[in-house]
Amino acid sequence: MEQGLRGGGSRPAEPGPCLSSQCGADQAASVSLLSAAGAEPGSRTLAVAAVLPAGGCGERMGVPTPKQFCPVLERPLISYTLQAMERACWIKDIIVVVTGENMEAMENIIKKYKHKRISLVEAGVTRHRSIFNGLKALADNQPNSRLSKPEVVIIHDAVRPFFEEDILLKVVTAAKEHGAAGAVRPLVSTVISPSADGCLDHSLERARHRASEMPQAFLFDVIYEAYQQCSDYDLEFGTECLQLALKYCHIKAKLVEGSPDLWKVTYKRDLYAAESIIKERISQEICIVMDTKENKEHISHLLEEVLKTELNHIHVRSQALYNAGSDIQHIILEQCYNFVCVNVKEPDFQETQKLMSMLEESNFSILYSIVVVSVHFLDFKFASPSQKMESLMCIREFAKKMKKRKVLLYGLIINYSQDEQKLQESLRQGAIIIAALIKERNSALIGQLLVA
Amino acid sequence: MEQGLRGGGSRPAEPGPCLSSQCGADQAASVSLLSAAGAEPGSRTLAVAAVLPAGGCGERMGVPTPKQFCPVLERPLISYTLQAMERACWIKDIIVVVTGENMEAMENIIKKYKHKRISLVEAGVTRHRSIFNGLKALADNQPNSRLSKPEVVIIHDAVRPFFEEDILLKVVTAAKEHGAAGAVRPLVSTVISPSADGCLDHSLERARHRASEMPQAFLFDVIYEAYQQCSDYDLEFGTECLQLALKYCHIKAKLVEGSPDLWKVTYKRDLYAAESIIKERISQEICIVMDTKENKEHISHLLEEVLKTELNHIHVRSQALYNAGSDIQHIILEQCYNFVCVNVKEPDFQETQKLMSMLEESNFSILYSIVVVSVHFLDFKFASPSQKMESLMCIREFAKKMKKRKVLLYGLIINYSQDEQKLQESLRQGAIIIAALIKERNSALIGQLLVA
Repeated sequence: MEQGLRGGGSRPAEPGPCLSSQCGADQAASVSLLSAAGAEPGSRTLAVAAVLPAGGCGERMGVPTPKQFCPVLERPLISYTLQAMERACWIKDIIVVVTGENMEAMENIIKKYKHKRISLVEAGVTRHRSIFNGLKALADNQPNSRLSKPEVVIIHDAVRPFFEEDILLKVVTAAKEHGAAGAVRPLVSTVISPSADGCLDHSLERARHRASEMPQAFLFDVIYEAYQQCSDYDLEFGTECLQLALKYCHIKAKLVEGSPDLWKVTYKRDLYAAESIIKERISQEICIVMDTKENKEHISHLLEEVLKTELNHIHVRSQALYNAGSDIQHIILEQCYNFVCVNVKEPDFQETQKLMSMLEESNFSILYSIVVVSVHFLDFKFASPSQKMESLMCIREFAKKMKKRKVLLYGLIINYSQDEQKLQESLRQGAIIIAALIKERNSALIGQLLVA
Repeated sequence: MEQGLRGGGSRPAEPGPCLSSQCGADQAASVSLLSAAGAEPGSRTLAVAAVLPAGGCGERMGVPTPKQFCPVLERPLISYTLQAMERACWIKDIIVVVTGENMEAMENIIKKYKHKRISLVEAGVTRHRSIFNGLKALADNQPNSRLSKPEVVIIHDAVRPFFEEDILLKVVTAAKEHGAAGAVRPLVSTVISPSADGCLDHSLERARHRASEMPQAFLFDVIYEAYQQCSDYDLEFGTECLQLALKYCHIKAKLVEGSPDLWKVTYKRDLYAAESIIKERISQEICIVMDTKENKEHISHLLEEVLKTELNHIHVRSQALYNAGSDIQHIILEQCYNFVCVNVKEPDFQETQKLMSMLEESNFSILYSIVVVSVHFLDFKFASPSQKMESLMCIREFAKKMKKRKVLLYGLIINYSQDEQKLQESLRQGAIIIAALIKERNSALIGQLLVA
């Protein structure tokens, strides 16, 4: 439910897996929204499918891998787009259109990241031909197809992973009413028209034009008809589905103002931006795991307080370890991919090892790596941190092993000084290190013992 | 000279400070290019100035700081743009147009990062009014001005730091010939024209339009005349200087196809992209500092070899420490901001301390932080890394002190095993850690001792 709220809220939500209870809530929301927009009285569920052309070769990226398959935090970009699309549980089928040579790679991505409701269709040589292939697969006259013709079809790009469910609902609702709809954004640059000799002929008034973005949605019959009528020239050189609906079916698409999130990953710099955005999103939540929640574990609570104060943009929660096992999966499903494990018992490491076992046993997120910071306390006045390090050296092998399970494990020794000021300073320093580890998710530094 | 070559090459060059010898070379290059383009026979130097409107409030960014002042690696974005502009030593004056309330902040930026040839002018309430103010300051009828009227004026944006000198030369050359010129890029999205009811009226053919980007250049008399003639309406609502030259002076600007680098920092994601691009650029060079270059320092050379093999996208050089003092500044001027300091002598740390003193004494880069990885060797078979750590704990205080001088110091202990395979594995791991430290430039981790 919380996720459903977030999806429409101002804070960028990181789509988690589709939970059946959320599905129910979302579906209800979609139907009521569609009804409210006057699409159809009553509550018959609208049949919606989506087509994602992903046959491009990404020549603008300047890298050999097509951009939709470029890794972002070690996962192909298209998987993030599918994850965002799957969030809308009311979308019945998602057709991904890929070239023959990428078909197997795409199948592996779907298997590895457990994407659901996906069908693969082979791409054509142009964007329009690929979309047409996707639509053909949905048309009800296909023999042996498990797909059925939807009432409304969404067309989206594989390289636009950052959209909210909200905009999907808006374009679907508008398409149901107008026959076609598409998201638009204000122009960033002035658009000009060159003359034949490469000089300025005229410039367009920026305020009177819009950039056409994705998602778009259509009554299936409208866009399928448009593609069937479409000239070879348009199939070859056209770029705009809204234009096809206008030209061949005289449908004037409703334009829906979208958020800046709708941007398309086009250049290498966009991959950098995508990675930073995703890192930021998955570093918003920290769960402090401690052996007990009772107040006598003074130090754990001090750390919790400092984390809350120092990292005020991060949501910090705590979880007692004795019952964390059953909760670990829930915590991860609630989009918390970061754990700070407080070790206070002897022998060192007991709590971290327990958490690691729980993580291994739980069927945890395959979508993101999990960061675990193993925290240890020592009064530097009575012992050098290096002595503590000696006993913690096993973290290196441990971290190597957990890396294969997509867990990034780091160690952190905090000066548990009797001097209140020194203790606070050390805790503060520890909070800064924890924030950095969680933010960077740097696998080169796993198994290191840091000192605060 | 190397820098001059890089500026025009395909590899993105990070602009260093303007060296007088390079200035000479660049200036010659500019004149000969301008001549070759048929602008003017002979080699009279063209008087060129630049105007950078920086009065915007960045409302699209969603942050309170105007985007040109947003920090990227702790330095305001506009300083990167000025740095890139200064690289073109043939630009006589750079006029930055800022609002009254940002005037002092801008003065401080110029002072702190030692920008040269800059004059500040107060912004108007719109972009066009701000540019007009900048041009007025250059017009020769201003009393008490040290500025003189240029023949050609470049107009650029404060929020486009990633351009090459090459494109400046191209637009200036074209402006000299045609009266006006501007960089253009292919459209990323289709541009559409909405009807009054928010529906699609028509879409524009993508191939027949271009996005107008910056830099642009004009014969000063042309653009100044255009602004003087300009209607209040255009000053208020216009966005395109090329359009003013066309409308008021009937000059059809030459359009110059630019590279993707010309993009404008508009949204928060663009700041993320900018930071990643800059981090990548300044992590291309590593200088290994060792006590001697003689071959008997076997281990240093082994490390050098592994760094070269493992980090094949990074240029690795080495420098003997005994004469590095005089060379440190040169190494930094040649855009190397990363040092790996090999410590082989007793007591530990001797070499790193020497390098630190050299860095403190040299008048090193104020533009970027410098990363120093202090490398120490130890055979883990005979001693635990924690023992070595004990003796290296002083690195923490040392790193805190150097942080104030913009040096990020990290420690790295490498297993100097007699077992060839183990040694290679440890060196390889060390190389990966070094690459990560240099790439991330994470100040939260300074003073930490890492183990490979």
